[in-house]
Amino acid sequence: MDLATTLGLLVAFGLIAVAVVLGGSATAFIDLPAILIVVGGTFGITTMSFSITEVLKSQGLIYKAFLSRDRNPGNAGLLVMELADRARRDGVLTMQMLIGEYESEPFLQKSLGLVVDGVPGDEIETILLREVSAMKDRHTKSASILRRAAEVSPAMGLIGTLVGLVQMLGRLDDPSTIGPSMAVALLTTLYGAILANMVFSPMAAKLERNSNEESLVNTVFLTAAASMGRQENPRRLEMLLNTFLPPAHRLQYYED
Amino acid sequence: MDLATTLGLLVAFGLIAVAVVLGGSATAFIDLPAILIVVGGTFGITTMSFSITEVLKSQGLIYKAFLSRDRNPGNAGLLVMELADRARRDGVLTMQMLIGEYESEPFLQKSLGLVVDGVPGDEIETILLREVSAMKDRHTKSASILRRAAEVSPAMGLIGTLVGLVQMLGRLDDPSTIGPSMAVALLTTLYGAILANMVFSPMAAKLERNSNEESLVNTVFLTAAASMGRQENPRRLEMLLNTFLPPAHRLQYYED
Amino acid sequence: MDLATTLGLLVAFGLIAVAVVLGGSATAFIDLPAILIVVGGTFGITTMSFSITEVLKSQGLIYKAFLSRDRNPGNAGLLVMELADRARRDGVLTMQMLIGEYESEPFLQKSLGLVVDGVPGDEIETILLREVSAMKDRHTKSASILRRAAEVSPAMGLIGTLVGLVQMLGRLDDPSTIGPSMAVALLTTLYGAILANMVFSPMAAKLERNSNEESLVNTVFLTAAASMGRQENPRRLEMLLNTFLPPAHRLQYYED
Amino acid sequence: MDLATTLGLLVAFGLIAVAVVLGGSATAFIDLPAILIVVGGTFGITTMSFSITEVLKSQGLIYKAFLSRDRNPGNAGLLVMELADRARRDGVLTMQMLIGEYESEPFLQKSLGLVVDGVPGDEIETILLREVSAMKDRHTKSASILRRAAEVSPAMGLIGTLVGLVQMLGRLDDPSTIGPSMAVALLTTLYGAILANMVFSPMAAKLERNSNEESLVNTVFLTAAASMGRQENPRRLEMLLNTFLPPAHRLQYYED
Amino acid sequence: MDLATTLGLLVAFGLIAVAVVLGGSATAFIDLPAILIVVGGTFGITTMSFSITEVLKSQGLIYKAFLSRDRNPGNAGLLVMELADRARRDGVLTMQMLIGEYESEPFLQKSLGLVVDGVPGDEIETILLREVSAMKDRHTKSASILRRAAEVSPAMGLIGTLVGLVQMLGRLDDPSTIGPSMAVALLTTLYGAILANMVFSPMAAKLERNSNEESLVNTVFLTAAASMGRQENPRRLEMLLNTFLPPAHRLQYYED
Repeated sequence: MDLATTLGLLVAFGLIAVAVVLGGSATAFIDLPAILIVVGGTFGITTMSFSITEVLKSQGLIYKAFLSRDRNPGNAGLLVMELADRARRDGVLTMQMLIGEYESEPFLQKSLGLVVDGVPGDEIETILLREVSAMKDRHTKSASILRRAAEVSPAMGLIGTLVGLVQMLGRLDDPSTIGPSMAVALLTTLYGAILANMVFSPMAAKLERNSNEESLVNTVFLTAAASMGRQENPRRLEMLLNTFLPPAHRLQYYED
Repeated sequence: MDLATTLGLLVAFGLIAVAVVLGGSATAFIDLPAILIVVGGTFGITTMSFSITEVLKSQGLIYKAFLSRDRNPGNAGLLVMELADRARRDGVLTMQMLIGEYESEPFLQKSLGLVVDGVPGDEIETILLREVSAMKDRHTKSASILRRAAEVSPAMGLIGTLVGLVQMLGRLDDPSTIGPSMAVALLTTLYGAILANMVFSPMAAKLERNSNEESLVNTVFLTAAASMGRQENPRRLEMLLNTFLPPAHRLQYYED
Repeated sequence: MDLATTLGLLVAFGLIAVAVVLGGSATAFIDLPAILIVVGGTFGITTMSFSITEVLKSQGLIYKAFLSRDRNPGNAGLLVMELADRARRDGVLTMQMLIGEYESEPFLQKSLGLVVDGVPGDEIETILLREVSAMKDRHTKSASILRRAAEVSPAMGLIGTLVGLVQMLGRLDDPSTIGPSMAVALLTTLYGAILANMVFSPMAAKLERNSNEESLVNTVFLTAAASMGRQENPRRLEMLLNTFLPPAHRLQYYED
Repeated sequence: MDLATTLGLLVAFGLIAVAVVLGGSATAFIDLPAILIVVGGTFGITTMSFSITEVLKSQGLIYKAFLSRDRNPGNAGLLVMELADRARRDGVLTMQMLIGEYESEPFLQKSLGLVVDGVPGDEIETILLREVSAMKDRHTKSASILRRAAEVSPAMGLIGTLVGLVQMLGRLDDPSTIGPSMAVALLTTLYGAILANMVFSPMAAKLERNSNEESLVNTVFLTAAASMGRQENPRRLEMLLNTFLPPAHRLQYYED
Repeated sequence: MDLATTLGLLVAFGLIAVAVVLGGSATAFIDLPAILIVVGGTFGITTMSFSITEVLKSQGLIYKAFLSRDRNPGNAGLLVMELADRARRDGVLTMQMLIGEYESEPFLQKSLGLVVDGVPGDEIETILLREVSAMKDRHTKSASILRRAAEVSPAMGLIGTLVGLVQMLGRLDDPSTIGPSMAVALLTTLYGAILANMVFSPMAAKLERNSNEESLVNTVFLTAAASMGRQENPRRLEMLLNTFLPPAHRLQYYED
């Protein structure tokens, strides 16, 4: 589970929960119709702009993206340099024995598998690049669904509040109901603001960030596999990796 | 009828209707002058920015776009691969017999018709590309009319509410009318928010999405027809289609 | 007079006028100081961002643009094809007799005049293209003044309302004046919203749209005149026109 | 002094002043702490985003830009055509006597001075182009400071109003102070709206517009000086100037 | 410490503090739960969109960037011209003795060190350019974290205010608590507005401005070091520097 996401969510929601409980009336903040209007309405309108398959598929991808660990392209680079060094010394077939060690990196396993199978380097690159681009494509779609939801939820909150206000204003003759009615009316705006600003917006930003890192790490793996397949010198691989790694993660495996 | 649109609209409007009915005063939410100001005003101002012919023409296109099924470019690709395979084996004239089977795909019928008529491949491409671009052009115009309406309707809602507030404030001496007058004033804001966020905005997004898919599927059809007209090997057609199909829909008709 | 503009304006303003009159206090909606602040202030601030000559000149252009008929580039194309056909058959000097018939199209008259005067085709193109670009230039300037006014007027409305609120709050001791004072304060916001959303914004959009169509029609005229001046075959003119006419207006003058 | 700016400011501020005075309580609109928060706060925050030297230097440039007359590139073009014509007939040294006549155009004086000094044409162009670009650079910086101030001032107005509201709500037990306290609280929002919409925003737009015209006029002067320095035919100068003068200001000095 | 930042912050916060104290109830402006919701919530949500390491690392960079002096690229240019002149006359090894004098400019020290070590000019350029780009990369990341915080904090303020309003409306029966409860509710909006407009937004703008100047000065240093390494004539260095220095800072070291 990604630490920053968990911690950030816990801190933000925790502080609001504390404020609600200290206020002494936590139940006043839960109103089923208000929840239904904002959550259901946001789901409905977001679905309208896409297709049902897309919305459901992205649900799964979003959870998965959140469970993904923080990826470090620099470490991935070091790892493949070691592998490439070893493949150079002991032959690519030694990779066969190493594949089992990287259960947590299915993409690396797949890449090495292709090397062991003797697929030529350029073909390895073509096959894996297509897969990386397909993955990125799915993530972009999911992020755009989240961004749309972040636009829709405050609008649904406003609509819910207007409905509540119109109802309240129709019963103005009984002053004792004004306060509670107005409180309920404001709840949808509150739910909409929370959903948009504390859930959908940061989730979309996170998903985009994770997707970028994931595809950077995968590009490291595929570049290494292609390089092994072409039986290149690992020094050339280091040079290749440094052309696209961000400055902070550049490699210096050989001391020169 | 497109499922996501119907379902999304039903869920969102249904939840709001339930909230309105549970509030016990559903009739308080219907006010003819308010509806006229928001709906009529939005129509009037949107028309001002375009021409009457454009607005009326797009009306029809919008309904049509909504009734269109969910298009699957991958399936369209498989279908044309089968057709191309068959044309390769049994000659393009066999297409003559197959045209009748695709009544639900008029663009495919037209494409095959050109092949059967012996129009050269490059000319087929030119004719059909022009048609696809003309269709896209009409959809873009309709989507931009919807987007404009989504901008105008909240503004008309605000104007209606201000008119209502000024009227209410002029009769402040009779306190019993304040509530209902204010409720009516807020109704135009509510109508404007609903029209913009639950109707025009998602409809524009949907129209653009459907238009993109429609023209992708039509491009699949026209590429296949042009390829048949040039009497190319279907393997080359598969390669051509894969250059523009999205990753998730790439074809692998031949096992290689 | 452009139909969509007239109708749109009438519908939108008519509906609001009906709502105001039905509310029973139409005079409550007219307040001279409020009108002066919003209209005068918007004029003043908009002028500040440009120069006086520019604002006055564009005034005239705006009225003229609104009086302009709906232009149809397709019809203009058919007209020049007929003229080019005739010029081809009977010689360009026959154009001399036809010029008088197109009083409603001064730009076409001017174009044909250059052909009759024997000005070479390329020179005709240079002279007229410069004129089309100068006209477009003036329209863009006028549209940007309208867009600026659409930004300024709600701001002036807000400022007027704040002035009114501060005055009202200073006399809170006499409750009977609160309602009417607040109503007057809200009027400037109402005026600002109406000016921006129902006048300046759609007028700017319309002006840009009309300007685009006007210069498309004029480009049709100048292309035809240049083609006649070069004594080209009208079939070539048709091809030239189809390269820039929108799909819906493409010509098919010759049956091929 | 620029007429449009003076007139626009006078009209807009005059109308508001009239509304304030007619309201009978002009002093209610002046509150020193409110002025300090909005004006001082806007100055402080704007300075934070830049450096003190930049903010002070641009102060001077802003006044200067406002005092600059309305520049007419067409007239500047005619003037340099006359000068070039004379230089062609009587030799560039006659420029020596004419320099004194153009005290109001220091950039023209400088340009002619270089011609008289016998600096080669291409070098004149290089030197003066650098100066024009440095001037434009300074104006862009000043305009961006004004744009930033237009963003900051409404924010400071909102902060001031929130401070006032919190103070007012703490003394709600004495109802007679509610009105005046709220009025004072709203003043900062009013000041912020006035500063942003009636001062900073139009000033930035004006500065950018003036800067564009100034550098267009200066480019006319430098092009002429370079052309004289290269001893070119004035007809060639006319052609050169027409390539960058806007359509409405194109020259036709020679009758052809 | 950067003067504009300190002064700007002091002026803006000082004026608000004065207004708060003059209002007589300074303690009413401090509410721990409100501070926790806005500050903690902003921190939590901002962290969610990035990773914990990134947020912590940027913390340090932000303080450092604020402590950095105002950099003057023109002065840096003059300094390196003097050094280059001296290196030309007395040999690059004299640089060895001068390095110690520039303790306040570690990047200049590093650049000169490479020259003294005899690293070839082109290699010096490659090594140092990579470092400048890595530094810029880190600053851009930090600025984007600040910009995100400036978006999140007003949203957290709004959420806090809605929570407070719902609580207040639930206890409307005791009118004496309305004022203070509402005051507390508004505090979170106030905190959010202050954080976004007076802290995060100007800090991000400043950081970007400082980063640009820092990397301009460093580019001056590295260009000079590379030029010394290539043993070029200092006149060529002056020309090189003038190609990228802004107009106001252009050098004229040699009198020509």
